[in-house]
Parts: sequence; C-alpha cells; structure tokens
Amino acid sequence: MSASVQTQKLGILGGGQLGRMLIQSALDFNIDIHILDPDENAPCRNVASTFTVGSLKEYDTVYDFGKDLDIISIEIESVNVEALKKLQAEGKKVFPQPEVIELIQDKRVQKQFYKDKGIPTADFILTDTKEAVKKNADFLPAVNKLGKEGYDGRGVQILRSEDDLNKAFEAPSLLEKLINFKKEIAVIVARNEQGDISTFPVVELVFHPEANLVEYLFAPADIADEVDKKAKAIATEVIKELDMVGLLAVEMFVTHEDEVLVNEIAPRPHNSGHQTIEANFTSQYEQHLRAIFNLPLGNTDLVLPSAMVNLLGEEGFTGIAQYEGLEETIATKGVHVHLYGKKITKPFRKMGHVTIVEADVKLLKEKVDFVKNKLKVKA
Amino acid sequence: MSASVQTQKLGILGGGQLGRMLIQSALDFNIDIHILDPDENAPCRNVASTFTVGSLKEYDTVYDFGKDLDIISIEIESVNVEALKKLQAEGKKVFPQPEVIELIQDKRVQKQFYKDKGIPTADFILTDTKEAVKKNADFLPAVNKLGKEGYDGRGVQILRSEDDLNKAFEAPSLLEKLINFKKEIAVIVARNEQGDISTFPVVELVFHPEANLVEYLFAPADIADEVDKKAKAIATEVIKELDMVGLLAVEMFVTHEDEVLVNEIAPRPHNSGHQTIEANFTSQYEQHLRAIFNLPLGNTDLVLPSAMVNLLGEEGFTGIAQYEGLEETIATKGVHVHLYGKKITKPFRKMGHVTIVEADVKLLKEKVDFVKNKLKVKA
Repeated sequence: MSASVQTQKLGILGGGQLGRMLIQSALDFNIDIHILDPDENAPCRNVASTFTVGSLKEYDTVYDFGKDLDIISIEIESVNVEALKKLQAEGKKVFPQPEVIELIQDKRVQKQFYKDKGIPTADFILTDTKEAVKKNADFLPAVNKLGKEGYDGRGVQILRSEDDLNKAFEAPSLLEKLINFKKEIAVIVARNEQGDISTFPVVELVFHPEANLVEYLFAPADIADEVDKKAKAIATEVIKELDMVGLLAVEMFVTHEDEVLVNEIAPRPHNSGHQTIEANFTSQYEQHLRAIFNLPLGNTDLVLPSAMVNLLGEEGFTGIAQYEGLEETIATKGVHVHLYGKKITKPFRKMGHVTIVEADVKLLKEKVDFVKNKLKVKA
Repeated sequence: MSASVQTQKLGILGGGQLGRMLIQSALDFNIDIHILDPDENAPCRNVASTFTVGSLKEYDTVYDFGKDLDIISIEIESVNVEALKKLQAEGKKVFPQPEVIELIQDKRVQKQFYKDKGIPTADFILTDTKEAVKKNADFLPAVNKLGKEGYDGRGVQILRSEDDLNKAFEAPSLLEKLINFKKEIAVIVARNEQGDISTFPVVELVFHPEANLVEYLFAPADIADEVDKKAKAIATEVIKELDMVGLLAVEMFVTHEDEVLVNEIAPRPHNSGHQTIEANFTSQYEQHLRAIFNLPLGNTDLVLPSAMVNLLGEEGFTGIAQYEGLEETIATKGVHVHLYGKKITKPFRKMGHVTIVEADVKLLKEKVDFVKNKLKVKA
C-alpha cells in the first residue's frame, strides 16, 4: 500500500494557503502534487509539480485537470461537482467524495442533513425569498445564511429585530436561531478509506467582531471533560454519517447549558487546524494526506498548549503587503510565523497566521496579545 | 529590516535535500528562493521560484546564477569560490562568506586554522604524497584525509598499522591521530550579521560502521554538564574566529577524559540538525534563514527529547526506490518521515530521514531500533 504514496499523482482543486501548507507536508512523503487554481499568482504557484491556471467551477477544466491523476482532493468547496462525479465514475479516487462536497456547498442541504441524522444543531427554517424571511419575524433574533456561495463571512448576516428584515437575502437561504453561546469550538476529524477515524483535540475559537473570521484560537479548549467528549463524538458521528474519506473540520457552539450544537463543517484542512503543524504530533495536513492515501492515521495529541492568530490584512490598506513588527514577533520564544505568499493585501484578507506554542497557558495568552498588537499587514 | 525578507531574492548553490528542507521553511517567510544544481532531477526541482541546471564548480555558471540575486548561500561546500568572491565584491551578500567556504573546502587549511586559533583538535601532520605518509609510521594509528573533495565518507580512511600505509593517499592530505573517543557529538551554532550567536543543544551521533555516515543521533546528548558547556563554547569560538554569518555545524569527539576535540565543520544546515524541524522551538533551516537575513535568531530549546535516523539506501539495491515498512513506521506516535524526492536508490545513498520525538528516553531508543529495523529503501 505504501508504494501508492510514491506512484499515485495527487491533484488539488485550489492553490491557496491550504494547498501550500499541504504541499509543505506532502514533500516529506515524496507525494507528487498537481494544482488547479484560477489565479496565476496563487500561493501554490511555485511549489507544485504542475500548476494549472483555470476555473474550479468549469466542468471541462476540472475534468481535464483530473483525468490523468489518481487521487483528487480539494482545498475549497466551491468546485464543479459534476466533473468530480465523472472522474469518480471513471475510477479516480475523489476525497472528499463529490456527494459530500455537494452537500456542503448548500447550507440548506447541510442543515437538513443534521436534522435527518439527529445531529444537534440550531433550529432553522428554509426560505426562498426575502418575503418568506419576513413572515418569520417571531423567529428572530436569527442568522440569515445564503444556501450557496457564502464563504469566509460573506453570505451570512444577523437579523436581530424586525428592523433588520429588509436586509434578508432574496435567494434560497435559511434562517437559523441565533444561539446565545458561551464558546465556539472546533474539532477536526479524519477518516481513511479503511474506516479508521481519529479526532484532534478540541480547539476554542475567537471570532473577529467585524470580519466574521476566526481571529485567534486556543488548543486545548477550556471546556468541561463532558463537553470535550460530546464534541468529539459529534464530529465522529458527522464524518461517519457522511461516509466521508479525508479531513473534516466541525465548528460547534457550546451553549450556557453545555449543549454542543454543530454550526458548520468543512471537508478539508481548515483554519482551526493550522496550529497542528507545530503543536501536535501529526499536523492536519499530514493527516489529510494519510486519510486520502489510506495510510494509518497519525497520533493527534498536543505536544504543547498552543494558540493560532490569523494575520488579516489591516483595515484601510490595500496594495503590496508589508509586514510590520515581524522581527519583534519572531524574536519571541515559541512563535512561528506562516506567511501565505500573497503579494497584495486588502482589509481582512488572510495573509498568514502565527502559531504560538507555550507550556504556561497564562503566558500563552500574553503572547497572543503581543502578536495581535505587534504584527500588522499594511501596504 | 523585515522588509528585506519579502524583497530580497535568495539563491542557493545546491538543490539537494538540505535545499529542499530550507525551502519548506522559507515558504513560511515568503522568501523567494532560486536554486542552482547540476542534476535536473535534484530534490528541489519543483519547489523553487526558479531551478537552474548547471555546474556549481564553473565560475561563469555560478556568477551568472548569482548576479541578479541579493543573498547567496550554499547547501554544499563544493562550489566555485572565485565566483562567490566576485559576487561579494559587487555588493551581494554571500553567507557563509566565500573565505569561510574556501577554508572549509581544504581539510588541511581547516586543521591549520584550529591549530592557529587554539581550538582543540586531534594532532595532525600535513602530507603531500604517499611517500610522506609512509615516513610517519610512528604516528599510527591515524586517519588519512584528502585535503580536498572528500565528502560523506569519501576521501577518509583509517591507517591502523604499517600494513595499511600502502593505501595512503597520493595527494595533498593530512594524517590525524586516531582518537579513541567515548562519543561523537555535534553542536549547530548560528550567527547573524549583527553578531548575535545562538547554539542548538548538543546532539550525540552514532555512525554507520561501514558507510562513515551518521546512522542515527540523539538530542540531547547524554554527556556531563561540563562537556556540554565546553562543546557549546568551542562551537561559539569557531564561528566567531571564522567571522562567519550563517549556520555552522561543529562535529566533535569526546575523549574518555572528557576532552572535547573538533573533528570537522560544515557552514550550512547539516545532517546533525534535521531533528530540529520537529524537536526544537526553531529549526536549523529557519535559523539559517534568520541568520543570513539578519533577523533575530530563534530560541533553540528542545521541545521534547528526540532522535534522528538516517534512511540510507539498502546495500545490494540500486534502482527506483521502494520504501518498505513505511506504514508501520508512521503508525508509531512521534515518528516523522522525511523523504528527499530522490527517484533512484543506491547503497548508502541518503534517501530520507526519520525524526522521533518522545518524552520517555528509554522508549525513544526503542522507537529508534524499531524504525532502523522496519523501514528500508530497496529497489
């Protein structure tokens, strides 16, 4: 089986930072990685065996890219699923499977899946028009989410009161009860082809108040053992019910009553697992490769407590990125900077991240504050 | 100063495994790396900003490669020093400096340097011919080393008794007293342009009995505190006396009387520092980049005790590499496999390495044995 790692060509749809970190890991296994991305300046441009510029959403482009490869995976969900189904029918391994990607592409289908499978999630109503949303004023406060094409905070808005109803999406969307949560957490779970499943330690996410992006996270999460067990059990159940091979990030709310509710899932390496590169015995990127090549899954224990700070483009700056405070940041023990090779910064663009490993949790938090205040991406 | 990381182009002479691991690290700083290597299939072929096929020993090739770059470094010492001197004279930063590379290219000059600077090393005699060696029968047992072009065990032989004298090199060489050592150790030390110096923890090397290559190593070394201090002080002294910028690996003998003697040095990332990728707060590769870009040096503490096992081509096999036992190896907690992307294996060729991190030192040694016995490169 191990021969396959050396001989099977892997194609990734998407050549952003997730693809780039996946390649950094794949080099250690001599995995031959081929990338498709619409942007000729994408972060993977110089580091793949081949880098093809083309749309991820066009049937022919995706099919042509995949037809000479052996395993096809993704680093973004917004891809042409029909082409992936055709490739799968022709005997290619497509992980996550096209059916899983299709389900996740539509938040309405995703929510219905949780409901059907008895996976705990916030109550919701499906709506097709703004009018339909307006009829549910008694369901507020709620989150209005576009069914398709939402990404990194786009296509998601909070409707707190009737005054907000005019903002409702005029498109197939869903209205989800606004959860008054105590914490947001995430569990990354992996499953290989032979069905082995392994979860990473639960992480605690802190979101940027404006950008609706993860601002920073801590691993392990500061939660009760019971919540920890529940979160891992839910993540395991989701990947099993999806019958999925690969890596799945499961974002969850913890309510004030310590209920755990699934918020969203992503079937690929994820922002909530970046810190595993330095902080865990196996990184999420290596685990993804192990899963899709049907290798034994790696141990996921934390080596040291850790934090991850997203490095977002500073508000008010657009242009060639300059990294302010980089030297002070890297002079700090346990700090690892990961820049993504993006030339142009703009407000809230994900330009990199910083992982901090530190045995002393109080000091870890101090270092998070230091990095957040010191390191800025300007232009 | 940090702007320089984003804007200065780095060229590396040599595109082997050291260059490849350097690139894996450099990606995190968005460093633009250009590679020159004579082998079109070298490990760096797909992962550099540009990959130029050409001789490292030809003046014009090296000069042309470097003339549009800003910083030039090496991953092998056997390069054209005159071209590097010219590039340096034209204002390029060449680290390690050409003079250092030149000194290290000739083991005779290297030994004389230790003697002149009072750095402890085994006694030696310089010889120019086989006849000259033969006149020193009373100096045996000794190690006969070619002045130039020795590498990875080539150009080095032990002359135990007069019967061996006929094997002596018919070339400028040196005859070094055979040290009856207790241990072989190494210290990697870094120095940036502003003169900051930092040493990595001392590692303990175990050599392959036939191949004269490191078979495996442990970090930290099992040595007395006093020996530890002495080793780090010597490494620090060597890099200072060389007035060198970059990373320097210093291999040393520890005698039965706990004397520490310098054996050989290498002014670049080194086999004795591979395990720093997973086991230390900063890896040797990142430290090299920090040094040559004049950034603050990183903390070098061990996160966990670790070992590194070189993965050498199995004797009796030449051809397309097959990795036997890879699955069992990576199923073990704390094991990290690094393959070097070399298609063809041959006896004792460095095909990869395995790092093991493990808090329990007894278990660490068991895992080393497991990996050594299980993972084989055949054809």
